[in-house]
Amino acid sequence: MKTIQDFKDYVTSIENANEYKKPLAFGIARVDRGQKNPQKILQASYAVANWKENFGSFAVFFGALKELGVNIDISQSEFVWDLNEEFINKAYEKFSVFLDDEQRHLNVEVIKHLKDNFIKNRFRLVVLFEDEAPKSVEAVYLKLYALSKQFAPLRSLNLNGAFGVLENVAWSGRVPYEIEYLKENEIPLKLDGTYPNIDFVDKFPRYLQHIVCDPSTRILESSKVRMGASLANGTTVMPGASYINFNAGTTGSVMVEGRISSSAIVGDGSDVGGGASILGVLSGTNGNPVSIGKNTLLGANSVTGVPLGDGCIVDAGIAVLEGTKVSIKKAHIKAINDANPNLNLDENEEVLVLKALDLAHCNGVHFRQNSLTGKIEASRSKREVKLNKMLHK
Amino acid sequence: MKTIQDFKDYVTSIENANEYKKPLAFGIARVDRGQKNPQKILQASYAVANWKENFGSFAVFFGALKELGVNIDISQSEFVWDLNEEFINKAYEKFSVFLDDEQRHLNVEVIKHLKDNFIKNRFRLVVLFEDEAPKSVEAVYLKLYALSKQFAPLRSLNLNGAFGVLENVAWSGRVPYEIEYLKENEIPLKLDGTYPNIDFVDKFPRYLQHIVCDPSTRILESSKVRMGASLANGTTVMPGASYINFNAGTTGSVMVEGRISSSAIVGDGSDVGGGASILGVLSGTNGNPVSIGKNTLLGANSVTGVPLGDGCIVDAGIAVLEGTKVSIKKAHIKAINDANPNLNLDENEEVLVLKALDLAHCNGVHFRQNSLTGKIEASRSKREVKLNKMLHK
Amino acid sequence: MKTIQDFKDYVTSIENANEYKKPLAFGIARVDRGQKNPQKILQASYAVANWKENFGSFAVFFGALKELGVNIDISQSEFVWDLNEEFINKAYEKFSVFLDDEQRHLNVEVIKHLKDNFIKNRFRLVVLFEDEAPKSVEAVYLKLYALSKQFAPLRSLNLNGAFGVLENVAWSGRVPYEIEYLKENEIPLKLDGTYPNIDFVDKFPRYLQHIVCDPSTRILESSKVRMGASLANGTTVMPGASYINFNAGTTGSVMVEGRISSSAIVGDGSDVGGGASILGVLSGTNGNPVSIGKNTLLGANSVTGVPLGDGCIVDAGIAVLEGTKVSIKKAHIKAINDANPNLNLDENEEVLVLKALDLAHCNGVHFRQNSLTGKIEASRSKREVKLNKMLHK
Repeated sequence: MKTIQDFKDYVTSIENANEYKKPLAFGIARVDRGQKNPQKILQASYAVANWKENFGSFAVFFGALKELGVNIDISQSEFVWDLNEEFINKAYEKFSVFLDDEQRHLNVEVIKHLKDNFIKNRFRLVVLFEDEAPKSVEAVYLKLYALSKQFAPLRSLNLNGAFGVLENVAWSGRVPYEIEYLKENEIPLKLDGTYPNIDFVDKFPRYLQHIVCDPSTRILESSKVRMGASLANGTTVMPGASYINFNAGTTGSVMVEGRISSSAIVGDGSDVGGGASILGVLSGTNGNPVSIGKNTLLGANSVTGVPLGDGCIVDAGIAVLEGTKVSIKKAHIKAINDANPNLNLDENEEVLVLKALDLAHCNGVHFRQNSLTGKIEASRSKREVKLNKMLHK
Repeated sequence: MKTIQDFKDYVTSIENANEYKKPLAFGIARVDRGQKNPQKILQASYAVANWKENFGSFAVFFGALKELGVNIDISQSEFVWDLNEEFINKAYEKFSVFLDDEQRHLNVEVIKHLKDNFIKNRFRLVVLFEDEAPKSVEAVYLKLYALSKQFAPLRSLNLNGAFGVLENVAWSGRVPYEIEYLKENEIPLKLDGTYPNIDFVDKFPRYLQHIVCDPSTRILESSKVRMGASLANGTTVMPGASYINFNAGTTGSVMVEGRISSSAIVGDGSDVGGGASILGVLSGTNGNPVSIGKNTLLGANSVTGVPLGDGCIVDAGIAVLEGTKVSIKKAHIKAINDANPNLNLDENEEVLVLKALDLAHCNGVHFRQNSLTGKIEASRSKREVKLNKMLHK
Repeated sequence: MKTIQDFKDYVTSIENANEYKKPLAFGIARVDRGQKNPQKILQASYAVANWKENFGSFAVFFGALKELGVNIDISQSEFVWDLNEEFINKAYEKFSVFLDDEQRHLNVEVIKHLKDNFIKNRFRLVVLFEDEAPKSVEAVYLKLYALSKQFAPLRSLNLNGAFGVLENVAWSGRVPYEIEYLKENEIPLKLDGTYPNIDFVDKFPRYLQHIVCDPSTRILESSKVRMGASLANGTTVMPGASYINFNAGTTGSVMVEGRISSSAIVGDGSDVGGGASILGVLSGTNGNPVSIGKNTLLGANSVTGVPLGDGCIVDAGIAVLEGTKVSIKKAHIKAINDANPNLNLDENEEVLVLKALDLAHCNGVHFRQNSLTGKIEASRSKREVKLNKMLHK
């Protein structure tokens, strides 16, 4: 191939071939293997991952595999294959028209780097054809990477069985150790003083081990954000009691000093106070994922088990769970209705008593405990709620 | 010694000698010494520790010491001695019949490794004859190791004065630095950019620095578990607000997202919610250690200062302390009695008001705060309680 | 200069010169520069900093600069200058009478070390003439260092705009990485397995990266204390939910298991329980910084948003905010007045209801929630309050 048109023609020819299937995602992973059992993949790092894009690069990889006689079973949801030098050479040739570009495409960059720095058994081509339950470590990592890089929205990917696919490993810096290896070699490692310093033991890595965060984002302690979490630009994660699990995170600039459990999502301008807990689908919400709107404040050590809208406040130290009975005085019933076009609370009651779940997704609600009566009360918060005009009609 | 019988005879001869005393525990420790004052022991690592077992190995070590003319004062509760090459050689010879075993005994393995890798002033023989207050750093570490390895049950060992025995050190990875050394060398270390990266400053090391955890156990951040904690297989420790102190831990598969303070123990299937606090003997329980039974849930940000039985629930955000007055409605009094064969609450009252301590160790109790009245109430939880039939008669 | 008198005369001559100005603080910083843009200063480490002292050393540095023809604009609040070998040589000469001292002055030690170990572009002279809003990274670091070393009291320094001055960087051990550098080099670093292990991403470093703590102080996890925090000797910081922000800390021996937010200060003998939150000026106190007196206990998971005096107790799990209505029964009104010479609560009421802010700075107050009524009540705590006799008259 000598021209870009040649390249385009080549891509078209691959894409029109019978055995071709458009992938959901693909990338070249650097893998860490078990020290004892090298067949076990402990980690897969993506320098570049392609999510619903760069199909030209995929055609190159697909074509190289075909030329090498590799059979790709496109009826399967995923494909993982150990790279060899021939593959790199073939891809390099196909990318030849782009090699002198000043701003090389990322996939070209990867192939060019591997041309000079290839190591056997270290690199694998990973392709997802469908978003089904992941079968390989590489597929799980690719999905976690997609969530953390915001290629795919939170809660949108099928991660069923991921815990079963991943090996539990002991991490020392970015190196995962097979636990069985440490067990078997404990005597020489300890006597020689070479036992690795283990930072943590988990199936999942940490977000900062794989993600270069935006310069506007701060994570004051790497253990606080699991790989697979998604942090919008401007998010700050403090090191006290905070934690953001995989498949959870923020969709705007958020101050996080508390816990965002799995599947929970927090909106722009909101504040998760020190020690505040947003319950996850596995911990007290009957499987209902909790979303928190924009500009909402969860006070220090509060617990929130229901979804909240924009401009809400949960006072410090209180728990708002699905079944919590909440009292609303007459003066506030109307004000809350006004902030929520789709809400229709009975405005005739002197005091309305609801379950907190009945206020799910509502805007502008301030939850507090009356310190004279112990009642949990809801009132219209003093925070502004910007209503979407379209919904208002 | 040429046969196993020779070895057995040798062991018997040692054990029958006058000056012999059966140890509680023994092992060879690799020690880290002060950078400024090498007499100070900063850490003692055990590759292998023997707790109420392997007395044959002890006879070998004891015999080697005797041959070297070392006096062992068996009237003392502990014995610590700097190993030398002669000792290794003598022990090696005595172990000779086992050296070719495919599956060598761990103590044989240690001696064999040291035969080729001995370093002066690095290794010490440590023996505990009695479980008295530890006098040496090595003895404290051996006891912490025994607790973490589950050789000895939590709360069973005498650790009086351990804080006084241990040096406070600055840890960089697995290397402990004497604080005085850092102070005195601050100028060259900082100007040259060689000042060590300090992970923490404490008298105790971290659990993962010394313990190879079970492949079913996960500790998402090493700072969260202190050496001397005990984690049963299947325990998961999350990185948010959790912490497990020494002489505390779990006796079954437990999800830990909160604090298990010193002396607190949590049973199989229980869940310590995000930010939940189990108070320790030094913090609000009048010295009564708190045990939590099986299948009990401590809600997010709850505080528990009394022991609980099986199948209990403490709702998110509430505190159940010894003096907390708890109201139980008639319908639940009988149900709670039924779940607790030894309990005999007055079933005639419409509402019974007790101190939480009166419900200590009770099964099947659900503690919650009524959000209409602010009352702390107890009811029969919806969790199943499996009663021990023997207690039921 | 051959004698100490010569040195003194030299210092006087400099100090009497027209262009001289006495500094607030000065020191030589080792700087870390951007990997991509070396003009960006990512970190400034002080082996020695001089705060309102050692003006003789300053005269030496000032004189050396003059001799090198460097113009120092003393109308500016700060001065930062790249050191060169000539400067080191000149300062070395001027310090010559002290070079053979057995106990060399720290500034002499620094110059002596740099004489043999100078690296270009690594060291900078930093001078603060006035405590104005810092303009350089070096000035911010010098102020944070002064706070952490207790040269200057908490809340006493002007740090306005510090967040704007500091670069957000990715820290790997003590090495700060420019985020843009990691982004641009992600492909080779990740493919080669040389991507650095990032501990955290923040504008501020951690306390233990710069401060050699006192041997009586323990910090069980370095992420828990930000540079610029101040810890009095004997303070212990546990690794659960705790955190101490910059410009916050302790003024005596304190057990910290909770959060001390920015500007909050805790006194000797007090206890910040597990997960307890002291609100900061940016989080719920209307900008009023919270001080906690001596011998005060903040229970586990409590929240405190008002300043407290000595001998107070905030019960586990409750929140005491500025607007919290607090009930005091007659029997306790007088007892609280007695513990607070300047307080004059109305002793005639059966139950007095106040806002918690009205009890700000009061001694001997026990805040609890009545578990039968849900009321937040204040009573005279059982903790002793040692009144200052001078105030008692």
